[in-house]
Formats: sequence, structure tokens, C-alpha cells
Amino acid sequence: MTYFSRLSARVAEVGSLCVGIDPHPGVLDAWAVGQDLAGVEKVALGTVDALADKVAAFKPQSAFFEQWGSGGIAVLEKCVNAARQAGALVILDVKRGDIGSTMDAYARAYLGDGPMGVDAITLSPYLGFDALRPALDLAEANGRGVYVLARTSNPEGADIQLGHTASGSGVAQSLVDQAARRNQLSGDNAVGLVIGGTHASLGVDLSGFQACVLVPGIGAQGGTMAGVETLFAGTAALILPSVSREILYAGSSAVSLREAVDKVLWARTIHRPSR
Amino acid sequence: MTYFSRLSARVAEVGSLCVGIDPHPGVLDAWAVGQDLAGVEKVALGTVDALADKVAAFKPQSAFFEQWGSGGIAVLEKCVNAARQAGALVILDVKRGDIGSTMDAYARAYLGDGPMGVDAITLSPYLGFDALRPALDLAEANGRGVYVLARTSNPEGADIQLGHTASGSGVAQSLVDQAARRNQLSGDNAVGLVIGGTHASLGVDLSGFQACVLVPGIGAQGGTMAGVETLFAGTAALILPSVSREILYAGSSAVSLREAVDKVLWARTIHRPSR
Repeated sequence: MTYFSRLSARVAEVGSLCVGIDPHPGVLDAWAVGQDLAGVEKVALGTVDALADKVAAFKPQSAFFEQWGSGGIAVLEKCVNAARQAGALVILDVKRGDIGSTMDAYARAYLGDGPMGVDAITLSPYLGFDALRPALDLAEANGRGVYVLARTSNPEGADIQLGHTASGSGVAQSLVDQAARRNQLSGDNAVGLVIGGTHASLGVDLSGFQACVLVPGIGAQGGTMAGVETLFAGTAALILPSVSREILYAGSSAVSLREAVDKVLWARTIHRPSR
Repeated sequence: MTYFSRLSARVAEVGSLCVGIDPHPGVLDAWAVGQDLAGVEKVALGTVDALADKVAAFKPQSAFFEQWGSGGIAVLEKCVNAARQAGALVILDVKRGDIGSTMDAYARAYLGDGPMGVDAITLSPYLGFDALRPALDLAEANGRGVYVLARTSNPEGADIQLGHTASGSGVAQSLVDQAARRNQLSGDNAVGLVIGGTHASLGVDLSGFQACVLVPGIGAQGGTMAGVETLFAGTAALILPSVSREILYAGSSAVSLREAVDKVLWARTIHRPSR
């Protein structure tokens, strides 16, 4: 079964929200846990326990686990396994991108059946879309997915992403087009895109793209669910909005976390917290 | 003491070679160790033991450790600590790049005093040079360094890297210029660049850049030490050529590994092995 069909089935069942697991210092404070690995574990596993039946996917942010060395990675493994056992998909936000056998090793790390095998990962394309091929190959072979950064949520990304390739396409557009072509060839839509939900306009033409777009930047970064609906209106892609701090700041109570999810889903316009 | 001054002192002492630690399947076979974590540890620690006095820096490739989950990261921690205790610098090849507090967490993971603190890391700039600022700030504060991917060694990188930014500069050139400007402002040259040694011409103007350029792609990818000398002739940068498989394929004997280093340093033109 392909990643895209598993994701589509899950979205049909529970809706399309992705919740980021970002145990950063402010979140640890909001949960009243220590600024240590035990605190990270409480946030990561507590979020999974509270929300696994309400979300399509969790998106753990690798950086906040890597920060604690091998012990942090062990906690991330626990978090990933708990989420998958509870039925949620896991999109690990690692933004990897390399070449040849190195890219192959990243693919085997995250898109295989090792201790950190997940459903999908994010990929960064500075070394070229084609350099990512080992990950795309393994994703398709193993029923996993990838999300290639196209247009990120942050303002500093525009200069490169809205620039032009040597062959004259828009940079982000060339990635959209290559992802669409790959999905047409494979027929299984394993290659998703990351497009931030903070923009007033997409900046790319998504008309040929029918797989999943992961949309971060909602909440703390200023994007809103209503804005995302407008931004992607009329596209054929499966839109997966991703919210992290807006929810995690609700703290350690499962009831509060679930209310925060409901608020994101139904309030339409999200409050922008001070950072 | 700044990273650049520590690196310069080390290069003056032992020369400018960087040896990559890439325990990939072919290398494990060449060492006659298992395709398992014990094999990875033997290659990683064996390379450090054999070569620490002969190289300016080791460049472990994170992917080959991440592949084994938290156990692999624990081996990477051992490798990093062994190399630094033996006096070599460690440039961890992680190619991270993210935004805001996530970038900050990556910086603290690798450029602080945690279990995986190293001397320098590689960074990938698809989200914009300015998005990398938390890593640059921490590198300068802690006497560490970063190497921003500018023009990578692989052919698939050219389309984006030799394209143009939205503001009209060459993409790779804009990164060179921003790195140079940052180094001029800080005065401590913490921001290096990655430029592959496989190219017939640089494709960027390095005349304003005086920090370190890490040059992978020598050996298995077809670059030669003689080619690197020609490529960077006349630049004011500190050139740090990086060789991995060409050396690691010599196998587990310390004598063979040391001879392989000498061959790279003195043979000038490197044999291109079949892959």
C-alpha cells in the first residue's frame, strides 16, 4: 500500500491536521517539565498519547531531539514508535539532502525498517532534486513518502526559492514540476512538497501536482487555517496543514491539548501569540 | 580562540588534509567487518586511531551513523570525542538547515558543549543564508565554525546553485558574498564554504573570501589534489581538501591507512576507482 493511499485513508478517517512535536525550551516551560531529556520525553510521549486519535500525522522536529545527543535520538525512537502504534502517521522533519551513497544512508535510516523508520521525511533540495533519488526510490519501494522543500514558510527563503535555475525555471517551480513528473511516472504519489502557509500567494503553479503538500507556518509563524484554504483553493493536491506550538503551548493536560486541536480546526482564524 | 585560528594552527602543524569518515557498506567490506553497528564502530574509531596525527580534521558523515538509530549516534559521539581528544578537529557533515528555534536547536546540538559538540558543521542554505544565523551566532560565540554549501561536487547541484536569486545574483555567489560579509563583520572567519573539487571551473568569484573552503569530491568522485590546486589558484581562502573513500578503502591496517594518506598527499594525481 502506498504512503499516499495510507495518508488519504487516514485523512478520510480523522481529518487532515498534522501536529508538530517540537519540544523546544518554551514548550518545556509550558508543560512545567525540566529543560532536560526527561522533559523532552514527557512532551513527546504526552503529545502522542493525548492526540493520536485526532490527527492524521505527527511531525516530530528532529533538531529538538538531536540537541540531546544519542539519548535524544532514543527518545525520538520511542516517540515515533508510540505514534505509529497508535495509528497516526509519522512525518519526521529532518530536512536531509545529500548525494549518492550518503543520500542512500539517510533513506535507509528513515524510510526503512530500522529503529527510526517512519512514514515520511522532509528533504532539502539544495544539491538538486535528482540527488534525492535514493530516498524517492526507497520511499516508493517501501510504501513511504517524502516531502521536498519547495517554498518554505520563512521570509529568508524567498531569495533562492523564488529565484531561477540555470535552465531558466523558477527554483521552487522546478521542484514542483520534478515532483509531479516523478509521481506521474511512478503512479504512487510518494513525493510530496513543503509549502509554507504564511504566504499571501503560492508563488508556484501547482496545477500539475496531485500528491500531498505539507503546510507548516500555521500559528506561531502567523499563518491561519483560513489563509491556507484560500492559498490552496482550486488545487488538486492533498493539503496537510501542520501546527506545532499553537497546540503544544496548551501544556501537559490531555484535555487542554485536545481543546487546542479543536480550536485550530474550528476557530478558522488563529491567534498569533507573542514569541 | 576562534575556529579559524585553531584550524590555521593545525594546518600549519600537520598540513591541510581532511579525512572523511564514511562507514558505508563498501568500506565495511574493505575492512572485513560486519554490516552492523560493531563494524561501523571499528571503522570510525580505527580511522581516528590510525590517522589523528596526520590530518587537520576528520569529517564524519552523519548519515552513516544515523542509519543505525540512537546506537549509531552513540558511536558517532565516541568517534567525535576520540578525534578531538587526539588533537584533530572535527567537521561533522550534517548539512542541516532550518529556521528560528529549530535552527537554534541544531546549533546547540553541534556547536555547543553537549555530547555531540564538534568544531564545525556543514549547513545547507535552501531556506536562506539568513535563516542559518542562529548557527553562525553560536559558532562565533563558542569558537566553532560552519561550512555553508555553496557549489557542491555533484552534477545535479548545478541547476539551482548556478541559477540566480530573486534579487539577481548567482545563487552560489550570493552565499559566497554573504559568508564573506559576515566574516568581515565578525572579524573571526567562522563561516566557511563547501565547494566541490570535481569542477573544471569554480563558477563563483572567491576574491572577497578569506576564510576556509572545504573541498569534497576528491578521489571516488573524480576530483584530484592537482585539480584542486588549479581550481583555487590565486584565492586567499584556506583550502581544506577532503578525501574519504580513497583512504578508507585501504582497510583496517593502520599502516595501509597512513600510506593511503601519503599517497593522496604526494601522488598529486589520484587514481579514480571504479564505484
